[in-house]
Amino acid sequence: MKILLLHSHPEPKSFSSYLKDIAVEILQNQGHQVTIKDLYRSNFNPVGGPWDFEELNDPTYFNYLKEQMNAYKNNNFVKELKAEMSTLENADFLLLNFPLWWTSFPAIMKGWFDRVFAFGFAYNPKDKSYNTGMFKGKKAMCCITCGASKEAYSEGGVHGDIIKLLDPIHHQLLYYTGMTVLPPFIAYRAHLSDQATLYKFIEEYKIHLKNIDTLKPIYSPFQI
Amino acid sequence: MKILLLHSHPEPKSFSSYLKDIAVEILQNQGHQVTIKDLYRSNFNPVGGPWDFEELNDPTYFNYLKEQMNAYKNNNFVKELKAEMSTLENADFLLLNFPLWWTSFPAIMKGWFDRVFAFGFAYNPKDKSYNTGMFKGKKAMCCITCGASKEAYSEGGVHGDIIKLLDPIHHQLLYYTGMTVLPPFIAYRAHLSDQATLYKFIEEYKIHLKNIDTLKPIYSPFQI
Repeated sequence: MKILLLHSHPEPKSFSSYLKDIAVEILQNQGHQVTIKDLYRSNFNPVGGPWDFEELNDPTYFNYLKEQMNAYKNNNFVKELKAEMSTLENADFLLLNFPLWWTSFPAIMKGWFDRVFAFGFAYNPKDKSYNTGMFKGKKAMCCITCGASKEAYSEGGVHGDIIKLLDPIHHQLLYYTGMTVLPPFIAYRAHLSDQATLYKFIEEYKIHLKNIDTLKPIYSPFQI
Repeated sequence: MKILLLHSHPEPKSFSSYLKDIAVEILQNQGHQVTIKDLYRSNFNPVGGPWDFEELNDPTYFNYLKEQMNAYKNNNFVKELKAEMSTLENADFLLLNFPLWWTSFPAIMKGWFDRVFAFGFAYNPKDKSYNTGMFKGKKAMCCITCGASKEAYSEGGVHGDIIKLLDPIHHQLLYYTGMTVLPPFIAYRAHLSDQATLYKFIEEYKIHLKNIDTLKPIYSPFQI
């Protein structure tokens, strides 16, 4: 498979960044081709706006959806976004590697979706969403480090079930575009874990990665 | 009340921006003091990182949580963040005005939380979260424009109940810091609505705003 690994952590020596390296190693060893997009290192601008387009259809009133659709039809996205879209288009698998900040992606990754998952290119609710989504055939998976414990993120725990918390990302974002969504790998309380626990996470993640072909999806446009 | 109105839309003439103006008018008429933070107009940088701090506690390894706590204790945030924190600290009410992009805030607002809702300043999970949260006494409310219809965002609809979708924001973000969370105002399919429907939204929003003292909270550290 061609894998696009989207990575978002400000510290290259963090555990999250280490998990990114592990993924590259394991996936390449299995014969997959991995493209890494390190959003912090590449200084990605996450703020969607008129600068997404080479030319505006209506310079007097910025309607993001209309401009995205217009740009999709007329190949009018700026070079930076075209490159992202092209890599994504060629990928069979989108691997999202990030620390959980305020229940979701860091802003730099949120903005990658705002800008790259554009109307027309990534979805068209009239006939291309969910089971008929434009990215049908692609798979997606999150690899997450988070601050709280597994207990805190369980049903009845202080934050509730983390799978419910991630549902907007898994269902209304990834699956919405037609992707088959695999169960996430989550390293809980990584920043407070001792070396032995971190090794355990690494070993578990390696197994998770080796099984990506057989993991039972959370959501899929195909029968699951 | 002192109200901080956080606004995030790239088009000043959009319906979302209009709802922001309506809020200012109605709230000021009721005697509230409104401070507007227009994230797009002020060119807010949503990317959290080492540049959040005047000086780093450990320049060899960037640990965001540790640096935030250190900065909180030593008054070490950069001027821009100090100003945001000070406005928030003085506010009784946080009004979030935004279009729903990929199930959540636009990245520019997500990053406001990543950077301003800092460890130490906004929460301390040891003893200051949820019912004992540091922002206990403050209220928060979202005003959202979204692309899909009310039916699509209902239980059994294609996206499911929008209140569930917003739960990470309402519960694990706003209520987590101790805020009392009021029900959101949502303008569905605003971009495809005719003038009459938009007027209806405006009238409904005015009533919503006039009732902010009596609206039944979704979450609150006080008995509800």
